[in-house]
Amino acid sequence: MIDLRSDTLTQPTAEMRHAMAHARVGDGVIDIDPTVEMLERETAALLGKENALFMPSGTMTNQVGVRIHCDRGSEFLCETDCHIYQYEQGAFAQLSGLVAQPIAGHEGVLGLDHLRGTIRPENDHMVRTRLLCLENTHNRWGGRVIPQATIDTVCQWAHEHGLKAHLDGARIWNAAVATNMELSRMVAPFDSISVCFSKGLGAPVGSALVGTNEFIDHARRARKLFGGGMRQAGIIAAGALYALQHHRDRLRLDHEAAQQLADAAVAHSAVKVRGGRVDTNIVMLEVDPAWGSAADLQSRLFAAGVDSFAMGDQIIRFVTHLDVTPDQIDQACHILRSVLSAARGRS
Amino acid sequence: MIDLRSDTLTQPTAEMRHAMAHARVGDGVIDIDPTVEMLERETAALLGKENALFMPSGTMTNQVGVRIHCDRGSEFLCETDCHIYQYEQGAFAQLSGLVAQPIAGHEGVLGLDHLRGTIRPENDHMVRTRLLCLENTHNRWGGRVIPQATIDTVCQWAHEHGLKAHLDGARIWNAAVATNMELSRMVAPFDSISVCFSKGLGAPVGSALVGTNEFIDHARRARKLFGGGMRQAGIIAAGALYALQHHRDRLRLDHEAAQQLADAAVAHSAVKVRGGRVDTNIVMLEVDPAWGSAADLQSRLFAAGVDSFAMGDQIIRFVTHLDVTPDQIDQACHILRSVLSAARGRS
Amino acid sequence: MIDLRSDTLTQPTAEMRHAMAHARVGDGVIDIDPTVEMLERETAALLGKENALFMPSGTMTNQVGVRIHCDRGSEFLCETDCHIYQYEQGAFAQLSGLVAQPIAGHEGVLGLDHLRGTIRPENDHMVRTRLLCLENTHNRWGGRVIPQATIDTVCQWAHEHGLKAHLDGARIWNAAVATNMELSRMVAPFDSISVCFSKGLGAPVGSALVGTNEFIDHARRARKLFGGGMRQAGIIAAGALYALQHHRDRLRLDHEAAQQLADAAVAHSAVKVRGGRVDTNIVMLEVDPAWGSAADLQSRLFAAGVDSFAMGDQIIRFVTHLDVTPDQIDQACHILRSVLSAARGRS
Amino acid sequence: MIDLRSDTLTQPTAEMRHAMAHARVGDGVIDIDPTVEMLERETAALLGKENALFMPSGTMTNQVGVRIHCDRGSEFLCETDCHIYQYEQGAFAQLSGLVAQPIAGHEGVLGLDHLRGTIRPENDHMVRTRLLCLENTHNRWGGRVIPQATIDTVCQWAHEHGLKAHLDGARIWNAAVATNMELSRMVAPFDSISVCFSKGLGAPVGSALVGTNEFIDHARRARKLFGGGMRQAGIIAAGALYALQHHRDRLRLDHEAAQQLADAAVAHSAVKVRGGRVDTNIVMLEVDPAWGSAADLQSRLFAAGVDSFAMGDQIIRFVTHLDVTPDQIDQACHILRSVLSAARGRS
Repeated sequence: MIDLRSDTLTQPTAEMRHAMAHARVGDGVIDIDPTVEMLERETAALLGKENALFMPSGTMTNQVGVRIHCDRGSEFLCETDCHIYQYEQGAFAQLSGLVAQPIAGHEGVLGLDHLRGTIRPENDHMVRTRLLCLENTHNRWGGRVIPQATIDTVCQWAHEHGLKAHLDGARIWNAAVATNMELSRMVAPFDSISVCFSKGLGAPVGSALVGTNEFIDHARRARKLFGGGMRQAGIIAAGALYALQHHRDRLRLDHEAAQQLADAAVAHSAVKVRGGRVDTNIVMLEVDPAWGSAADLQSRLFAAGVDSFAMGDQIIRFVTHLDVTPDQIDQACHILRSVLSAARGRS
Repeated sequence: MIDLRSDTLTQPTAEMRHAMAHARVGDGVIDIDPTVEMLERETAALLGKENALFMPSGTMTNQVGVRIHCDRGSEFLCETDCHIYQYEQGAFAQLSGLVAQPIAGHEGVLGLDHLRGTIRPENDHMVRTRLLCLENTHNRWGGRVIPQATIDTVCQWAHEHGLKAHLDGARIWNAAVATNMELSRMVAPFDSISVCFSKGLGAPVGSALVGTNEFIDHARRARKLFGGGMRQAGIIAAGALYALQHHRDRLRLDHEAAQQLADAAVAHSAVKVRGGRVDTNIVMLEVDPAWGSAADLQSRLFAAGVDSFAMGDQIIRFVTHLDVTPDQIDQACHILRSVLSAARGRS
Repeated sequence: MIDLRSDTLTQPTAEMRHAMAHARVGDGVIDIDPTVEMLERETAALLGKENALFMPSGTMTNQVGVRIHCDRGSEFLCETDCHIYQYEQGAFAQLSGLVAQPIAGHEGVLGLDHLRGTIRPENDHMVRTRLLCLENTHNRWGGRVIPQATIDTVCQWAHEHGLKAHLDGARIWNAAVATNMELSRMVAPFDSISVCFSKGLGAPVGSALVGTNEFIDHARRARKLFGGGMRQAGIIAAGALYALQHHRDRLRLDHEAAQQLADAAVAHSAVKVRGGRVDTNIVMLEVDPAWGSAADLQSRLFAAGVDSFAMGDQIIRFVTHLDVTPDQIDQACHILRSVLSAARGRS
Repeated sequence: MIDLRSDTLTQPTAEMRHAMAHARVGDGVIDIDPTVEMLERETAALLGKENALFMPSGTMTNQVGVRIHCDRGSEFLCETDCHIYQYEQGAFAQLSGLVAQPIAGHEGVLGLDHLRGTIRPENDHMVRTRLLCLENTHNRWGGRVIPQATIDTVCQWAHEHGLKAHLDGARIWNAAVATNMELSRMVAPFDSISVCFSKGLGAPVGSALVGTNEFIDHARRARKLFGGGMRQAGIIAAGALYALQHHRDRLRLDHEAAQQLADAAVAHSAVKVRGGRVDTNIVMLEVDPAWGSAADLQSRLFAAGVDSFAMGDQIIRFVTHLDVTPDQIDQACHILRSVLSAARGRS
């Protein structure tokens, strides 16, 4: 099976396993774990921020970030399709009592036109708007890279209005490779960033929250609250550190593979690429209902040896990653063409 | 000053004061207050439901209703401009840990086209969609009466998908008068309804939450939690009961007055009625930016003796009610025309 | 029936009803209600604080107070038997996410010996201790007046350690009458005070939260959140204002009546007064299990024409108030003696 | 330095590192991680329950357990000194809105006498009592093993009253070794158990929550909410599995070492063992104030090469574990005796 469901599926490489097996570790709750500390320093340095904090998941880094920026009685602005609003079980409300104000952007991109007028006036009837959350790359819009100019503009607008800005940068690595920009430049407008080591970078476990020293002090307390305090986490941090040091550049191979898949797919008129472009390692296809549903296509591809993910009635997602070889991509393209051409999805 | 800011401004009438002064009362926390009980029975009967519960505010009745229908980890669907999402300080999240999924309707009306696809699949990444909230009449859309066919359709859809349906019926009395329908017929599709006695009906204080006996048992417990348990509340319930019995039919006078105001306003091209219609006692005008802002118009009207409410940069609201005489409406129309014609808002 | 279950049972007097019927009112949400404002000013002045805020219940005033003093991730200290911890449905946790640290005092009185060592060290494993809550008079300890010297001492300790101090003074009026002290002197050590108008004072509805102007600004916002914003609340505030002006001194009659009841009761060896004293208008009796249970005594008294409240297996409560005449107290004493002597509770 | 601060300090052994380096792994969020699954099965089997769920920390397993057993508006009973109430930042209230009812036991042991009368009557004024939490071994009472007869009795009482029973069994492995009982027998009375692999067992990271299949389904959803969903967590689960299979029996060496330390200490009259006994691997000493404070003793021992933990003004804790050799224990005993005899703590 060629498994293109997600880049979270990657297995640790032999070198990564070696790094984990030999990691120096310590009790990260009552002392410091030296490998975790090294990972945190290197991550913070890459992003040009003061400090970073390792956590077991991207849900935790995002939700801790949102919680710290938003005090009791406040809300954050976000694009309707973003991960924080859609895929984190409403933890911002369940655990932190916060309101989300989802705003539909243009193909996942929130511009000033979408944001103007969304900050609530100070008034006892209303929550207080405290934070703008962006996601780059944007998962539900097919790994879309948010244009840097747009990011700069809307973050400036946020700051001018007293809001903080948080980036869900789970796949910021992909955006950096795709744009050839410095990570630190890309995230400069943000007060906090959540990054993930276990997606395209291929580490088994872990994310980091990045920001000022003061922010990270608050985050450490919140991490304990959420149950994210781990002891000798250097074992998994070693995998993340290896990934950070060795697997960023190769993401361009995943991006090329994704483009190859998209090209193969759109050769058939039954599908088109959501938003018309493949910026990174995600191919989000819209399936013509006349052909069938996303579930139809998913199951026929599965029967032919390609696993993918139906994200909606007519949307299907393919993600390229470390564990898919060029040969497998060639095969997957062939299968995709065959399945689309052979028959309609619905019999 | 002709005060058209809100129908909540109404003073209790002499008869209402008499009713309150002579109300039979009891300790509603440890016993029953007989006047509260009478109000609750009469309200439930009017709405064709089993039971009702008196509370100090419409925010409390709405938020208790939402809390009961939505267990931990769930969300409700609502129209983006509705009171529950916009004007209740996010209590659903702050106090009950719930997520709102706001959906922009067509001029305040949510139809099936807006709702299809909004119920989240069962999935540990997502909250569970439990409830649909509607508002009738719709305040931010100028007292719009939601078409009954739409209500019936979307509530049926909600129930077919396992959702409950709650109505914020703070001004349902106006909708009933405007449509000449029976209240019980109008709210038949809802599992719970919040109604308010201190808006157009003119009572000083109070709202009621209406539903099944079991629902009201839960609501009583939640009311205590929110601090809404009152002792000899029969005093204010007597005012609400009087209002319920005597002030519903006369709402048609407020509606006529609102239409008269709207007609006067739109004679000038600088304003138009939001959504193109005045269904009840609210006139929501959009002010042409070329003329000036809503705040400009508000302050000029105020200087001329008419108080109104600027709801947004270009939106201004007038609400007619019990304490505005026909003469005052005539005057207000005259002032409105004069102010609009005299000059542009911006100097 | 001589109803001694609670002083919340009192009916508004004719004069109070007159005051309510003629109260000047306004829309307290968007403007000011003049009678509410007068009540708030008079209450704040009496207590020697800057400002006060009227709310529908003592649960709301207490819970809003606790919420404001305790930010996210903190706790308050309180006596185990106090109302805030026992009788407010855990709203501090349910609605505000706060931890209570209940500490058993000596007969309801928390002294330095009980409090030392309870403030948690600053440490990510622990909540932060932010507030000390006292209750005066103490309901579960039979209307006990907390000695002023103790109050002064423990509040000073609290402030020295960076804690705020909140008083649940629902029956502070009784304490003031019992001690002949100035209210402002009694509550001087507190940052906020909750007072109730619908217990011994006899008003139908309402409590107030009292503190600095800044604190009350926060409280106003929280009141809206909890659903405590009322429109023409001047109607009920007029009753509270009348009660405040006319019913405080007469509480000494209730205290004498309570002492008379206690004397009658303890003439029989089957009962003794909890804590050995009757400070105000509450008589809390411990029933000897050899005689029977509190429920036994309650039901026999009820059959004989006296209603009381069984608070625990062996504890029964009597509360004297405005609506119990001296003759009724004589009768109640007679009935109490007869029932206790006639037979054991258990047959 | 002989580090006796905690058994969480243990470094993974070479064999454990080998197991982690060669673990079979999978994406535990969208698929199954085979090593995590093996660990969960083996843990559940050992404890005689249907299922188990791996999480990054004991705080998360405890707090998820409490959250599932306690619905909105409820509370749990626990011993005042337990970890859930003291050391988990009040997550039960902060994240789940729950009330704790802490009850002081006898030297950490809650018996029927302490528990009778603590379940609240059904009543809108009160939270609902839903759960009893015990801790075995009891950390703050020096690794005390709770007598099985007491556990059986109080859990039966809990179940008879409709409560669930949860065990914080972070160190249940020590209790099993100390009593030579089967784990499944020990935890039979509990509905859920939290166990930890990174304390005495020596694994780097991880805890498990154990219970019925239905309970674990709820826990999986809550784990996602708390941000505990990890991808290829088999890496760390392999360490936990190795620890579970190889490090349980050797805990008796830690227990002997602890006893040896205690014997050395109490030879000097300035200290005594808290609760008079050392059941497992924790030695909790009370320091005579005449000698000095716990902090005094801690710093003098530290200067002499033994690290320990001052838990309170006069309480100091030593924990024996995998990484302390018999020679080091001999040295630690010698140092302890010398420091205690050499001088008073206070100069």
